[in-house]
Parts: sequence; structure tokens; C-alpha cells
Amino acid sequence: MQIKTPSIRWAFIISLIPISSLSIAQQPLFGFDTEGSEEQRRLEAEFDTHIDRAEMDRWLREFSSEAHHVGSTKGKQNAQAIAALFRSWNYDVEIAEYEVLFPEPRTRELELVSPNRFTASLIEDAVAGDASTSNIDELLPPYNAFSIGGEVEGELVFVNYGTPADYEMLERYGISVAGKIAISKYGGSWRGIKPKLAAEKGAIGTLIYSDPADDGYGPGDVYPEGPYKNDSGVQRGSVMDMPTYPGDVLTPGVGATGDVGRLNREDAPTITQIPVLPISYRDALPLLEAMGGDVVPEQWRGGLPITYHLGPGPARVRLKLEFDWNMVTAYNVIARMEGSQFPDQWVIRGNHHDGWNHGAADPVSGLVAMLSEAKALSRLAQAGNAPARTVIYAAWDAEEPGLIGSTEWAEHHGAELQEHAVAYLNTDGNGRGFVNVGGSHVLERFFNQVMADVQDPQTGVSVQERRRANLRINAGSEKIRNEAKNRSDLRISPLGSGSDYTPFLQHLGIASANMGFGGHSGGGSYHTMYDTYEHYSKWIDPGMVYGETLAQFAGRATLRLANAPRLPIDFQGFSDNVAAYIDEIETLAEDMRQQTETDNQNIKDGVYGIILDPTKSFGPPLAKAEVPYFNFAPLKNALTELESAAASYQDIASSGAPATARDNYLLYTSERELIRQQGLNGRPWYKHHIYAPGFYTGYGVKTIPGVREAIEQRQYDQVAGQIELAAEVLHNLATRVEELSGP
Amino acid sequence: MQIKTPSIRWAFIISLIPISSLSIAQQPLFGFDTEGSEEQRRLEAEFDTHIDRAEMDRWLREFSSEAHHVGSTKGKQNAQAIAALFRSWNYDVEIAEYEVLFPEPRTRELELVSPNRFTASLIEDAVAGDASTSNIDELLPPYNAFSIGGEVEGELVFVNYGTPADYEMLERYGISVAGKIAISKYGGSWRGIKPKLAAEKGAIGTLIYSDPADDGYGPGDVYPEGPYKNDSGVQRGSVMDMPTYPGDVLTPGVGATGDVGRLNREDAPTITQIPVLPISYRDALPLLEAMGGDVVPEQWRGGLPITYHLGPGPARVRLKLEFDWNMVTAYNVIARMEGSQFPDQWVIRGNHHDGWNHGAADPVSGLVAMLSEAKALSRLAQAGNAPARTVIYAAWDAEEPGLIGSTEWAEHHGAELQEHAVAYLNTDGNGRGFVNVGGSHVLERFFNQVMADVQDPQTGVSVQERRRANLRINAGSEKIRNEAKNRSDLRISPLGSGSDYTPFLQHLGIASANMGFGGHSGGGSYHTMYDTYEHYSKWIDPGMVYGETLAQFAGRATLRLANAPRLPIDFQGFSDNVAAYIDEIETLAEDMRQQTETDNQNIKDGVYGIILDPTKSFGPPLAKAEVPYFNFAPLKNALTELESAAASYQDIASSGAPATARDNYLLYTSERELIRQQGLNGRPWYKHHIYAPGFYTGYGVKTIPGVREAIEQRQYDQVAGQIELAAEVLHNLATRVEELSGP
Repeated sequence: MQIKTPSIRWAFIISLIPISSLSIAQQPLFGFDTEGSEEQRRLEAEFDTHIDRAEMDRWLREFSSEAHHVGSTKGKQNAQAIAALFRSWNYDVEIAEYEVLFPEPRTRELELVSPNRFTASLIEDAVAGDASTSNIDELLPPYNAFSIGGEVEGELVFVNYGTPADYEMLERYGISVAGKIAISKYGGSWRGIKPKLAAEKGAIGTLIYSDPADDGYGPGDVYPEGPYKNDSGVQRGSVMDMPTYPGDVLTPGVGATGDVGRLNREDAPTITQIPVLPISYRDALPLLEAMGGDVVPEQWRGGLPITYHLGPGPARVRLKLEFDWNMVTAYNVIARMEGSQFPDQWVIRGNHHDGWNHGAADPVSGLVAMLSEAKALSRLAQAGNAPARTVIYAAWDAEEPGLIGSTEWAEHHGAELQEHAVAYLNTDGNGRGFVNVGGSHVLERFFNQVMADVQDPQTGVSVQERRRANLRINAGSEKIRNEAKNRSDLRISPLGSGSDYTPFLQHLGIASANMGFGGHSGGGSYHTMYDTYEHYSKWIDPGMVYGETLAQFAGRATLRLANAPRLPIDFQGFSDNVAAYIDEIETLAEDMRQQTETDNQNIKDGVYGIILDPTKSFGPPLAKAEVPYFNFAPLKNALTELESAAASYQDIASSGAPATARDNYLLYTSERELIRQQGLNGRPWYKHHIYAPGFYTGYGVKTIPGVREAIEQRQYDQVAGQIELAAEVLHNLATRVEELSGP
Repeated sequence: MQIKTPSIRWAFIISLIPISSLSIAQQPLFGFDTEGSEEQRRLEAEFDTHIDRAEMDRWLREFSSEAHHVGSTKGKQNAQAIAALFRSWNYDVEIAEYEVLFPEPRTRELELVSPNRFTASLIEDAVAGDASTSNIDELLPPYNAFSIGGEVEGELVFVNYGTPADYEMLERYGISVAGKIAISKYGGSWRGIKPKLAAEKGAIGTLIYSDPADDGYGPGDVYPEGPYKNDSGVQRGSVMDMPTYPGDVLTPGVGATGDVGRLNREDAPTITQIPVLPISYRDALPLLEAMGGDVVPEQWRGGLPITYHLGPGPARVRLKLEFDWNMVTAYNVIARMEGSQFPDQWVIRGNHHDGWNHGAADPVSGLVAMLSEAKALSRLAQAGNAPARTVIYAAWDAEEPGLIGSTEWAEHHGAELQEHAVAYLNTDGNGRGFVNVGGSHVLERFFNQVMADVQDPQTGVSVQERRRANLRINAGSEKIRNEAKNRSDLRISPLGSGSDYTPFLQHLGIASANMGFGGHSGGGSYHTMYDTYEHYSKWIDPGMVYGETLAQFAGRATLRLANAPRLPIDFQGFSDNVAAYIDEIETLAEDMRQQTETDNQNIKDGVYGIILDPTKSFGPPLAKAEVPYFNFAPLKNALTELESAAASYQDIASSGAPATARDNYLLYTSERELIRQQGLNGRPWYKHHIYAPGFYTGYGVKTIPGVREAIEQRQYDQVAGQIELAAEVLHNLATRVEELSGP
């Protein structure tokens, strides 16, 4: 543990804290009456006394002592150790096993074959001062899981981040990746989008590297001198087509138990079409240096000491990948504490336990906070304060290759989860700085109260206050900066994908949230062999200071949801955010319309043609279909209906009327109204019509995705239908809320 | 000569040219009647036949065969050769000599002395394929002219571009340059600002290097593989405090003839206070690599393969500079062709002839276009079409060290120039791409007609049309993009400084302009030893294609000003631009007011304090005085008066009424109304109250500088007074324009 000695600056910061922010949040708790609030707060204070940073630190060291991906020896050991801990705290524990496909690399070869020869090392170097980096027995080498195998040879084309906009730019240079190998930077989109789009454009292979401008010596000193990515570090990661469906690639929609029907691997649509390999910037440098063709656009430049060129070629590479397509067992640890009053209402709290490597930050830092929280909750129960609702802690396996453990469990238990699950609360790797909460907006008001009640360990203000301050200064738009100052609740982010909440929220329609701290814990260890205890405890959260805060935070969220007599679900925060999304989409359409009109006019006027440099191959863009006007009225009418119902319900909820069993059932199943069994266009697994990961962004969220993506992808004939569908789910939710206010 | 073969793209581009743009501009010429317009256009067509690209190319090769800075053998030879050419074309030629101070480096030493040792080479490498880079007998090594000499040793502090905003940022890190050596990137401001500000902040020395992200392999392939700066290239350049006064440092305000009184060198205020040396990125790398302290802010990062740190230290350098402070002779070649009708009205046309080195691009590419133009003009005269007004061609010496040749001549002949000069038209190095015109806005309408009448050699559309197209696509704001589409005249840029127009415009109040082409001729040869004939003719303007276009363009401007019966001066374009500047300044004040209010509120609320990372030294900003409201009414009232007078004059000018001698005198001396003998606050040499180089930007213009800089520098008590002064010059101009419309 290496906590920096508080410096003189601490005193300075503390002196700046406005008095008002210290006495915040003694308002009654949402869902409790005054007396209940006092009791709950007393419980939470007691809860805090059971959080033990030193113990978290020991667990962190233990669980991250070796690589522990799904199918590894250490992975199974960790699952067993976690189960044992839960048992020692009197949870009912089950290890839920699923048999899933998990590819491990057998052959990884990458060679520059012309104009000069270079063989990529594809290895990460052990570093002085971090013993874990020499303890790599079962560590999988850098690869992208669910890349197809194969051997390809071709010229390189530099595709920047490999996003749709990047390919539009390449087209202006007259460059196609068809028959070529795309080399892409990490970033700009989720990694799985890069081979997906490259394959759609005809590429025969994809390389992905971490550019040092984004993730290396650009942002800061590299490991072990600093936390950032050194020249041998490689980000592993899954490239399965998660925006189509996550989880086991062979069993979409059903739990991958031993006896279930499976697709043939060849038919699994979420395995990539072309081979893809992640490499270090040390291995990328000779490849990029050997490229010719036009110089890249200014915004595409990276941080290597070369001129970046688009190609194609003359650099020509051979890429050979072979995988062992193993069936492995994913071990989900499921620990249940029966509710004392409402055992059929389940609050589910999860964090995965598998890592790509030692996985100290990702996921163990979050996992140990959850364990600490679970232990504290059991201590309260032992003292006679068992949760009113059933609390289920889940330590997921196989999250890294594609949210597999959580997805299979959620698919397996879908019907009962839709009947019983109150909410799913997720954490993953944790860091230092500001609280981040993403989730269903029916929980926005609830989480604001939690944020206001947890103290930031570095400044003493509430984590809400610190986040608000950060938004007031650093938010990207004046609108958000002003809103941070003036809106009483901070907005929580809509969820896309990237961790285990996805099957709960987007497949089952269970209100979900994802919580963590970050902003001051930059670094490049993510999915590299450097994600070790040594790295984490030196550079990310020395002394588990924010680990404790996360346990306090997620613990309060869990406890309050478990104990609140009336579930703290609010529809005004939800409708206010939906109103903002509708605004955004209208603005998007309007901006696209104006931009398309301007571009087309400029193309028609020959304006693009005459400004080009005739010695370069850069050409004008192609004209696009004009953007029609859309009828957003159905969406707005449904929103109005919802706003009105939400206001009526708000009157009831704040009247102090006790909640009936029916009330709470209607409340916690309300999120189900936002899903449709048919799912989204072209990806039926995703059933939520307000939140989805972007089909061409991956983790990045698309709110009201049917409408937004139809417009973004210029599928104008689909917009009206999608507006109707989104309006329908809003209307259904409004009807549900009216039921709550009714007799 | 290496002109790229027109590719298939050419045909494509030509096919995009709208028909309308080809038949533009047969409207009557501004200042001529219909018949006079036809005759003038016939003359111009004949003029064009005398422009000879091959001859320009020979001159380019000859004048740039060796280094030819002021005081050099080749510099004097060039002056004599230029004079001989003018004589051969029947000009009255004088070589106007001035005795000026010019420092040449005797000792340049730069060493890293700790934590490791490194001695900077400070030399530029000869390259294969460019014989000029081995022909460097009198070439001055890289240095900054008018740096003071001295030996200093100290820790390095990285100051980004060394602008006022950069020092504000450093203050937030608690870092001062006092007693340290500042290392700055080139760019962000004129180079002379860097040591000026560093010295104001207490630094003992300054290093300036070209970062490869800005000027090296970042933008493109480096010389000789491409046009960009290789790792040994160094930008030379003057660092005299030109925003205080340009020209000979010992003779401010008067011509540096042999017998004039001179300051002692120690008293010359425009020599730097601290030693300053420019270096290559090859020499900068070990220095920057040895630095520690905080990592730089994201926007400060450069393109070297290291993490950039702010310091101070531990890198410690020793810098030793010694100069020979020589008195040298500047040879201005002044060639006069007497006007046939108005010999007392002078149109002055200039380009400097001295270079820092071989100077192919800067300045010979512009010089040879001017020579070609002068030859063509003499051919017209020989054929009986001598200019109506006197035309004076000037090839200036000693521009590079600080506009010395032109400034001394303008100071020396100030009174007669103010009496006789109709306009000063400047060119300097030329490139390929889009026309750029900066100048007095009374000439905006005039130059738009010239732009519309000259064809772009690559696309066949007028250079106005091509520039308009570029603005429609690439202008930085939607306002400017829309304006480019809709405003009939393209705006010309206001002039700051950076070439020889400054003494004419800003000291004497002579309407001036600066013309050239660029945008497709990027490269890093500027002020390095690589500014050679070989570089220029391969990478910048192969075949002098745009050299010919510049001669056509500047030739038309010169000829029309010389021949127009009514001088083509327009006050509506001027007042429209002044209105925009007043708007800008009001917006500036309003934005500063709101930003200051927000910042102060955030500081007061402790918001900055609680978001900081306590493990870093970055702190909150300091509160600033609130920005008061200013009374802009006097400026706007004067503008209204001017707008009204300009409209009345427009009626007269467009009525076709013949101009009297008095009319033309009132017209061409109207720009004098914009100067005040007292000059600007703190820099009396600069007398123009609408255009000035920024005191803390250098070349960058500040319009209505008294008002704008008082606000920017937060000297609020001076704003009202400066508004009165600016209103006064506008009122004076309005009165002058009323005189023109009067009886």
C-alpha cells in the first residue's frame, strides 16, 4: 500500500469546502418515512463500520495473484474462494455452471513481408518492481477473443479508429480496404466494431494497436515509471459482435446448460468474419513506418515519431491466427440472503470475477468492494437486521470474453427474474476521483440521494457535490455546465454496454445501474499484463481508499432498495431524461438535414471540386439523399401522457401513503414496459426500446435506439415505424404509472 | 522543374466548374468608365503576354543560389542585379542605403548539464538531392537575431507556446520561470513574443524549438522525402520587439542614414532582455526527455516520442550566446516609372530581396513575380501605355531581421510618402493554392474585382471563386461559411505585421495590401537551410505556375491603381468591416464578463478546489476583477456617421462623375485620418488606430487595437479613453468622406 502523504494542498482544499455541502442530505430517504429513514441511516452507519480497507487489500492481492480468465485454474479457485467467503457469512451459495465456447490462441504470427521484413514479437515484457509480470503461467497472450482463425496476407490500409465516419473519409481518398488488411487504432469505438466494419467493407484481416498519443507516453509516464501503457503493452479483449447479442456465441437467448441445443460454431453470427489481432505500439511502429500513400488527415495522426500514411501498402503483412475452440465451464457464484419481509422481491448485486490477466483493477478492485459490502450486510443480518427484500450477490465468470456468465444466468432464469427482480446493481473495476452512475432513469432520483449521503474520501464533501463541481468546470457544453449548477438532481448516464448489466437491463427489462469511481486514475493497464496488484496499489487506488467509498456507496444503494417500504422508483426523472433524448434526436435530424443540404449544394455548385489539391488524391464527398422531415408527434404525445402520470404518482408517493404489495410489484416491474419481445430491428436479443449499445459504436449507448439509429444510418423509411414503437413503450409505461395512481 | 502530370482528377475537377463562374467579371472596372475599362482590360491582356514563367524560374534559381541575408556578399550582388534588371527596363533606379545594426552569432553553445550530459549540435544537415544544402559559405547558422548575448545556466521549464494563456496555466501548477530557462515550441504566437514574455516573467533564457507535431513529421514526410521539417531543421528569425517598433533598433522613427543620431545599443528597447536560441527537434529531444515534474496538460503535448513534463528541471542547461554587433548596409532597390498623367501620385509596390538563407520561397518566389510584373509594365510603357500615376517598385533589404530596409526608407521619406503615396502593395514568399489578400478595407471592393478577374491556373475558375469555395467548405465558423456563400465581396484580412507593409500602413497611414497564394504548399523550409531552389521547385510551386498567377494578380492591382481616373477606394466595405470589429469587441467583453463571473463564482463556491487531484500540483485559478460594462456608444455613433458618409460618396462614385485632382487627393490620403501622431498607448511608433500587430501576439492583428487590447489585458480603466480615440479617427474619416461628397 502506498498512500501519498497528504500534502499542504489537502489543507488548502479542505479550506475551500463550502459549509453548506457538509450538512447536506439529512432529508428523509426516498421510499422511507421519517422514522424509517432514521433507522435506515443508523443501519448504514453501522454498515460502514464493517467495511475494512485492509481486508479488501488482502483480497485484492489474493484474487489477482495470477491470471484468472474463464477456464483457468485460478479462475476456478477464485470462484471457490468467493463462494467460501459468502458461505462464511451465512449466504445461501450456489456455483451456477455454464458450458460455453471460449477460444484460446494456439498460433499468433504477424510479419511484415515487404517492402522490408519484420516479425512482430507479440509479447509483453516483464518489468522491474512488479513481480506479478513474471508470474504468468496461465496468462493468455494478447489476442482478441472470438476472432475467427485463418491466415491472410495483404497490404495495409490505415483506417484510424475504424468507425463509419473513418471509412467515409477513406472513400474520399479513393481508398478501399477490400482485399487488404486494416490497421486501426484502439479507441473511437468499442474494439469489436473495428473488425466488424472492416469485414463489411471487404477487408481480409484487422490489426488493432494502442497508439501512444491515446494510450501510452502521450498522456503520461509509462509503466513502471508511471501508470501508462509501455511500448510492449497490448490491450486484449473480446471482439464478438456484442451489439447483436452478448453471452455464449452458441446459445443466444437460452442458458448454456449442458443439455441445451447449440449452434454450430460456423453458424454463430457473433464470431468475427475476418482474423483480428491486437498489437503493441512497439510492434505497430515498423508496420506503420513502412506504409506509403497519402498522408493521413490531421485528426488521424497518432503519437509515433513518423508520418502516418493511409496506404494501401506498400507495407504488406502476413497474419496467421489459430485458436483452440474449447468448451469451458463458467462458474458464477450466486449468494442469496433471504428477505425478512418480501423474500420474493430480489435486489441483485453483481461484479464479475474473471480477468483477462491478473485483473487487479478489472475486475478485482470492484469485486472486493462488493465482497466487503456483502460481509457488512451479513453482519447487520446477524445483528437482527436482515434485509426486508432478498439480496442476491453474484460474482460472474466469463465477463471478459463477452458478458458470458451473467448473460447465461440471466437467460437461464429469465422468467423468474422478470417476476422477482427489483433491480440489478453492477460494479466492475474501480478507480479514484469522481462517482459515475449509469442506469435506468427511474433510479436517477434514488441515486442522487445515495450520492448526497456518501462522503468523498479525499475532500470530505459528498460524492454528489464533487461530481457536480466537476461538471460545473469540465463538462463539454455550457448547457451541461449550467445544468450541473442548477438542476437539483445530477443526471445519471444511460447505459450502453460493457459490463454485466446488459442482459438484465436490455434483454429482461430489469431496472439496472452501474457504479464506480474514476477520473483521477488514468493509466494503460486495462486488459494488459500490467493490470496487477502492484500497478493498482501504486497508481490507481493506493490503500483502497475509493474501494471503501464504493462499498459504502453500492452498499447504501443495495440496502435502501432492499429495505424501502415503498420502492424508490420515480418516473419524473425518467420522463425528463426521455424528453432530453427526444430533443437530441430532433436536433440530430435537423442538423443532418441542414448539413446534408449544405453539402449537397456545395457538391452541386462544384465547390468541393475546385478547392482540392490536384496533386493529392483527396476527392469530394458523394451527395446524400436529403433528410426528410419526420413526425415526432407520437413520441411527444406519449411523453406528455407519461409526464402527467408521473406527476400524479409523485403526489401519491410524497403523500406518505404506505405502499401495498401491488404498488411495489407495479413499481419494480415497470421497466418491463420498456421492452418488446420482438426486440430491436435486426437484433431481437436487445429488447429495451430506450437503452441499447450502438450497433456501430459497441459500448456507446444509443437512447431510443430504434429511432436514433434509423436516422443516423439514414434509413429514413424506417423512422416512422420506429417512432411508433418507441411511443408504444412510453405509452405502456404511462398506463402502468396511471395504474399506480389509480384506485 | 517538376510539374506533376495532370491526372484523371483534373478532368474531373474541370467538369465540376459551374458555367457561371467562367463568365464572371466583365463588369466595368472600379474607378474607370466603360470605355476606360475595356482599354484597361486590353492592356492587362497584353501585360499577361509578357509574364514569362521560365524567366521567373531562372531568376529564382539565380537569386537563391546562395545565402543572401543583409550584409552578405550575395545580398549585395542580388541588389545590384535587381537594380540592373530595373535599369534594363527603363526604370529610374536608386539603391537606397541605410546603415543598420545587424547581429551575427559568434558563439552558440547549448548543453544539458544534468541529470545527464548532452551537447546540442545546433547544425542543419546537408541532404542528398539538394546541392544548395552543401553550398553554405556565408549561410548564418540557426539563431534568433536581436537576442541579447550572454551565458546562463538553469533548470528548464516547458512553457508550451509561451503565450500569456500558457503562463496562466503554469501558474495553476505553481510553476514560475523566474531564474529558469523557458523552453517553448514555435507557433501559437510570433517568435519574438516568447523571449519577451519569458523575460517579463523572470526567465533568464529561452529556447525555441519546432515540435514535429506542428512542424515536422506530424504534418507530412520530411525533407528530402517530402517538404516538411526534418529533425535537424531550425527556424531562424528575428526576435526584436517589433510590436514596439520595427526597423533598425538604434533609429526608431527616423531613417538610418549615415549621419542620423543613434541610440546606444544598451538602450535599444527592442533587443531582447534575455538570451534566446532556436533549436531543432533533434536537439530538443534529449532536453525534454530529461525533464520531470508534472505531465503537461493534454493540449500542450507535442509529437516527440516521450511524455512531456513541465519541469522545473531536473534538466538543467547551459546556454551561451555571443554576437558580433555589426553595422551593415541595407540595400533597398528603388525603381521608379514616372506617371504620365499624375506623376505626384505614387503607387508603391514592394517585396524584400534578403533571405535568412538561400531564401527561394522567402522571399525570392515573391520577388521574381514582382520583377516579372515590373518588366511587363515597362513593356506596356514602351508601347506607349505608361502608367498614369507614378509606379515605384521596391526590393527591400533586411526584412528578415525586422522589416529594416522598408522601415528605414519609409521613416526617411515619411513626409513625402504621406503626401504622395496612393497605396503600398506588398508581396513576400509565394505558394500554391488559394489567393490571400490582407489590407486596408478601403481596398476590399477593389481587390474583389481583381480576384474575380484572375484565373486560378489549376482549376480555371477565378481566384475569387476558388477562395470563396474554400471558405464555404473550410472556414472555421458557420457564420463565415454562410457569408462566403452570400456576401458579394469576400472579406480581405486586416493586417497585423510580418512583412514590409507595416511601416507604410501602421506608421504612415498609407492604404496597404499584402497578396499571395497558399494553402496547398505546406512544408517546413521556412527560415531553414532547406529553403532552396530544389525544395521550392519540387514541393511548393513547380514550374512557377502560381508565380505567374501572382504576377497577373499583383500586376492588375498595380496597373489599375495607377490608371484609374477615380481612385478605386471605397468606404462602405471599410465601414462594414469596422462594424464587424466593433461587434467582435462587444462580444469579447461580454464573453469575458460572463466567463469571469462564472469562474469567480466557481472559485467562491469552492468548486475548483474539490475537483482537483490531490496527488497532483495543479491548483485552482485566481479570481479576477469583474469585467465592467463599457460605453461603446461613441464608437457606434462615429461608425453611423461614417456609414452615412460612405453611402453618399458611393452615390457620387457610381454616378460616373469624373474625379477631380482634389477628389483623388482626398481619396488616397483618407487612410491618414486613421492615424494619430501620438500613436498607440506605450508604442508611439504605431499610429494606426484600426490595425496593429498584437502587443502579445506579434504578427497577429488586433483591430481597433487600443480598445481591444485594453479589454484583453484587463486594463479596464483605459477602455473609455481608447473608445474615444478610436471614435475620433472614425469621425475624422467620416468628415473626410463628407468632404468628398460635398461641393
